[in-house]
Amino acid sequence: MQKPTILTGDRPTGPLHIGHYVGSLRQRVQAQHHYHQFVMIADLQALTDNGHNPASVTANVLEVMADYLAAGLDPAHTSFCLQSALPALPELTLYYLNLVSVARLERNPTIKAEIQQKGFERSLPAGFLVYPVSQAADITAFRASHVPVGEDQLPMLEQTNEIVRRFNAMVDEPVLIECQPILGNQGRLPGLDGQAKMSKSLGNTITLGMDADALRQAVFSMYTDPHHLRASDPGRVEGNAVFTYLDAFHPDLALIAELKAHYQRGGVGDIRCKQILNDCLQELLAPMRARRELAMANKDALLSLLRQGSEQARNITDGVLHDVKRAMGLNYFS
Amino acid sequence: MQKPTILTGDRPTGPLHIGHYVGSLRQRVQAQHHYHQFVMIADLQALTDNGHNPASVTANVLEVMADYLAAGLDPAHTSFCLQSALPALPELTLYYLNLVSVARLERNPTIKAEIQQKGFERSLPAGFLVYPVSQAADITAFRASHVPVGEDQLPMLEQTNEIVRRFNAMVDEPVLIECQPILGNQGRLPGLDGQAKMSKSLGNTITLGMDADALRQAVFSMYTDPHHLRASDPGRVEGNAVFTYLDAFHPDLALIAELKAHYQRGGVGDIRCKQILNDCLQELLAPMRARRELAMANKDALLSLLRQGSEQARNITDGVLHDVKRAMGLNYFS
Repeated sequence: MQKPTILTGDRPTGPLHIGHYVGSLRQRVQAQHHYHQFVMIADLQALTDNGHNPASVTANVLEVMADYLAAGLDPAHTSFCLQSALPALPELTLYYLNLVSVARLERNPTIKAEIQQKGFERSLPAGFLVYPVSQAADITAFRASHVPVGEDQLPMLEQTNEIVRRFNAMVDEPVLIECQPILGNQGRLPGLDGQAKMSKSLGNTITLGMDADALRQAVFSMYTDPHHLRASDPGRVEGNAVFTYLDAFHPDLALIAELKAHYQRGGVGDIRCKQILNDCLQELLAPMRARRELAMANKDALLSLLRQGSEQARNITDGVLHDVKRAMGLNYFS
Repeated sequence: MQKPTILTGDRPTGPLHIGHYVGSLRQRVQAQHHYHQFVMIADLQALTDNGHNPASVTANVLEVMADYLAAGLDPAHTSFCLQSALPALPELTLYYLNLVSVARLERNPTIKAEIQQKGFERSLPAGFLVYPVSQAADITAFRASHVPVGEDQLPMLEQTNEIVRRFNAMVDEPVLIECQPILGNQGRLPGLDGQAKMSKSLGNTITLGMDADALRQAVFSMYTDPHHLRASDPGRVEGNAVFTYLDAFHPDLALIAELKAHYQRGGVGDIRCKQILNDCLQELLAPMRARRELAMANKDALLSLLRQGSEQARNITDGVLHDVKRAMGLNYFS
């Protein structure tokens, strides 16, 4: 039996960090053995809110590609591709846009939340409003049956499946397939400063390529319990970023449970906890850093990997576009 | 010196009629000798308000192509192409959509008028809202310096030139060129029934391929002056479709001026006026009908003409897309 197809990817707006690792990369490293996995660098989508500064996107394409290899994605098991190298995607987007009303796009909860978060209001770029339709093009063009998403992205898959049903009903033929979400069980990792969002601009991240000294410094700068002044004081583990990270990364659950109990009743200092976290993250990141350096040492090979993957992806996505156009009667010349 | 480039075209939603001939086809027959003229069958654009019924578009592509040859457009002097066969257009559309705000699209006077006219309101398809951006893609992809339009379409060219200026400023390089309108001096031809709009669905048109009997019947069914009951009565020529048509088509201006004066003072019947109009339209349409029948008798050759033109157009539009992507830094692989 053929493996089911999974499509996932990232907007190349900066190098990836351990938040991405916990939230998606780690799962992809597992998934690549059980699915036909496509990982797409979504430069077109990144341009929908960086339209006036394309360099902020293009400068990060190879960084993200190196991060993928760093995280353990294996070209033998995962197909990498670049969104802007797949002309079928904009074509499908334009066809689908005729099947979706403006009112429907404006009701999309994810888009509404992001518009508010990014402070767009009246200056909302049209490309941003329509990007759920562009995502529907991505997902359907790969015939992806499974898409890993967070809860907040579920409306995107609903929009995709609405388009699939509407298109198939229109042409009276099951040309497109519906997709289902794979919901991650891990919440979002907070920033080093305890802020909910990890972001390069806030300087509160640990990137996958961070060197050992910087990593140690980052860990020892982390937000803990501001009322835990002496080691002997009882401390809080809830909202304490060090323990959130230990929960997310440390393999020895019993050890961490014991450490938490000790911290809560008093008698263990922040330094000790950060030392344990540092050891664990150093161990996690050391092989990633090595793979990343190797990848970046030969950018031509890295680019070539992305080009080859994109060519394979192009065959698949062009095939779906061909089917869509045929079903609509737009295959005049074939 | 190279001829300037002109881009024009039609939405294939029905066979073309004498309203199209007066409004655009006649000018194109002249323009093909003075411009590098591209005529595009805009099937993508026609789908923006026929998204749920693609057959209403696809069924008319060859009809329109035959009408072009019927009207006197000469493949030796005019390049024909099909919009859906040019993948650079959707790609450019998606890039440009990031440079235009939703508010700007909603302010477009042409779109506002068309939304009202088509009764869209909340069900407005997203593809329809963004079609001015798709037109900007068309115009810029051909490096068209001139675009023939009616007054009501001027906002479309303003939108195009706004995108051109914004893009060139962003990449700090004159990649795209601005276009200027060629305004027609002919108003819109009314329907046979005197209605302002000629449309297939109202059954008030004379198509280019109409046979001689049907043409005669159509002319003799035309709306005149409802108060002009006897030939001896004075009649009105304003709002009298027969005289509007005579003005638009009859080559002998002096004869028509004299006929009008006679009609106004009384003494000439509708039958006589319609006879003159019929003679003139029969003479105009006879060679068109012959060319159209010849074209439709060999649909393979007709399709082949469109395919070849589209391939040439693809070279040009792919070149512009390449320049746009290069200027944005999206040329990773070249």
